[in-house]
Amino acid sequence: MGKRWIGIDLGGTSMKLGLVDSHGNTVLEMEKPTLAQEGVDGVIGRMVSHARELAKEAGLRWADVAGVGVGLPGFLDVKAGVVKQLTNLGWHEEVPIRRLLEEAWQIPVKIDNDANVAALGEAWCGAGAGVDDVVCITLGTGVGGGLILDGQLLHGRYGFAGEVGHMTIDPEGHPCNCGMRGCLETISSATGMVRMANEAIAAGRSTVLADVEKVGTKEIFAAAAAGDAVALEVKKRAIDALAQAMSALSVVLNPARFIIGGGVSYAGEALIQPLREAYAKRTQPNARQGVDVVLAQLGNRAGYIGAAGLLARERK
Amino acid sequence: MGKRWIGIDLGGTSMKLGLVDSHGNTVLEMEKPTLAQEGVDGVIGRMVSHARELAKEAGLRWADVAGVGVGLPGFLDVKAGVVKQLTNLGWHEEVPIRRLLEEAWQIPVKIDNDANVAALGEAWCGAGAGVDDVVCITLGTGVGGGLILDGQLLHGRYGFAGEVGHMTIDPEGHPCNCGMRGCLETISSATGMVRMANEAIAAGRSTVLADVEKVGTKEIFAAAAAGDAVALEVKKRAIDALAQAMSALSVVLNPARFIIGGGVSYAGEALIQPLREAYAKRTQPNARQGVDVVLAQLGNRAGYIGAAGLLARERK
Repeated sequence: MGKRWIGIDLGGTSMKLGLVDSHGNTVLEMEKPTLAQEGVDGVIGRMVSHARELAKEAGLRWADVAGVGVGLPGFLDVKAGVVKQLTNLGWHEEVPIRRLLEEAWQIPVKIDNDANVAALGEAWCGAGAGVDDVVCITLGTGVGGGLILDGQLLHGRYGFAGEVGHMTIDPEGHPCNCGMRGCLETISSATGMVRMANEAIAAGRSTVLADVEKVGTKEIFAAAAAGDAVALEVKKRAIDALAQAMSALSVVLNPARFIIGGGVSYAGEALIQPLREAYAKRTQPNARQGVDVVLAQLGNRAGYIGAAGLLARERK
Repeated sequence: MGKRWIGIDLGGTSMKLGLVDSHGNTVLEMEKPTLAQEGVDGVIGRMVSHARELAKEAGLRWADVAGVGVGLPGFLDVKAGVVKQLTNLGWHEEVPIRRLLEEAWQIPVKIDNDANVAALGEAWCGAGAGVDDVVCITLGTGVGGGLILDGQLLHGRYGFAGEVGHMTIDPEGHPCNCGMRGCLETISSATGMVRMANEAIAAGRSTVLADVEKVGTKEIFAAAAAGDAVALEVKKRAIDALAQAMSALSVVLNPARFIIGGGVSYAGEALIQPLREAYAKRTQPNARQGVDVVLAQLGNRAGYIGAAGLLARERK
């Protein structure tokens, strides 16, 4: 049997754990509640014991696990292995999480943020397998991003690289949680699309969405497919903004592939086909030559797979 | 005596050659005409003999030169060492220039494009010395860029990375040479600034620039300093567009430093001070924390110094 690694994708409400082999194939996975209200020690204690359970259920001795990678939803010092802040979990103090986990497990641990590990998962053995220069964009409640350049995750000087959701699309646009205005996230996230639809409803525009109890991106894509003018507008605006950001990313980074994931991407071809067209229209021919725009493949397993990949993936 | 390298910055009208030491200090430099009309063989023959002359004038035997780096103004396959096209020189066929030069000189040769070697020069021993994550932006006839991330030049999948001049600022804006509209280059280059000033003059706007025989950025900055409304508008538009691009580059790459070079940057503090303010205003606080915006230091020596640095610079 080859080596085995564990990846943990820690979220505000649940943690996903997966045992993977050296190709990123999942041997066994589990999902457990985070119980953030039990504080730093409680959450770390639960990570420690659930990882041991996972190995045991898979019939492994703990000594057979080569290492654990952890994806964390917040602001980290990746090199130092320290959490600076995990707002979703209410962690506002510094936590030397890598050291604490290594002491508990006695095997190597690496950490990175959730968007980066999800991108690494897709790049390693999902929609980016075999490609060295990949931009992953996650369209969910917000818009996240992760950059794999020349086969390596890009962190930037202070760890903020890859925040494509905060590229400014409309300097006079809607306020963003980040404190600026008109970020990509305010337009192309699920939150942004739903807000634009609700604004049109509030303005008295005629749309089938006015009769929907709770508008989501699924309803918006369905209404657009049925020819609803408001839904078509919202969809076009979200796709155009994303294409504009991808155009800038292409001239700056010249990636070989864009991978689009997150809840909004479950729209599939109804999203990706018009996105390819808008991207081609907006992007300088040299910069887009040979560039693919594809859907993510790993769904919510990308996080733990990429977290394991922090250690398991073979370096070039 | 330590090792010596030669860098060559090949331009459409002249080539600059420099002999540098292992810290990038210039031992001796020379400038010679390119004479592009003599074709590929003529230009390459001239590079070969001028490099030998440079070593000889510095009192070195050719065997004492450790290698030659060459910056070329066009489209290259850097890894293969092949020119695809150098439009300025009228080279439209593929030229295996690295092999040809290595055969002539019998020492190692590396090539890269002119914007990249200039960026590498500044990052190695100019305004970016000691900093690992640097974005260089050159404001001249066009707007060029070079990215040093984690200490390495970024090329992207097909070698087009770093083309920050072709980030779209205004999708409905002025046509760009690249075939798109409203690229940063159409607004913040010398060409763009002069065009905007001439448009205002043609529209009959009152401005001291109307009495200038040939408007350049020097005249625009001087008129702005004297309070001329048109010049102030042109300057503000150029700086705002650049700040908008830098904001996007900050959230995507999170560099530690922006270095602004090229002809327009000779305006010095009159450019850099309002640019710092516009950048701070437009950029998300986390992404700009600890980020400097500084002027380039090496002037037109950056090219040959960075070209030499392709071989001479110590890898991390």
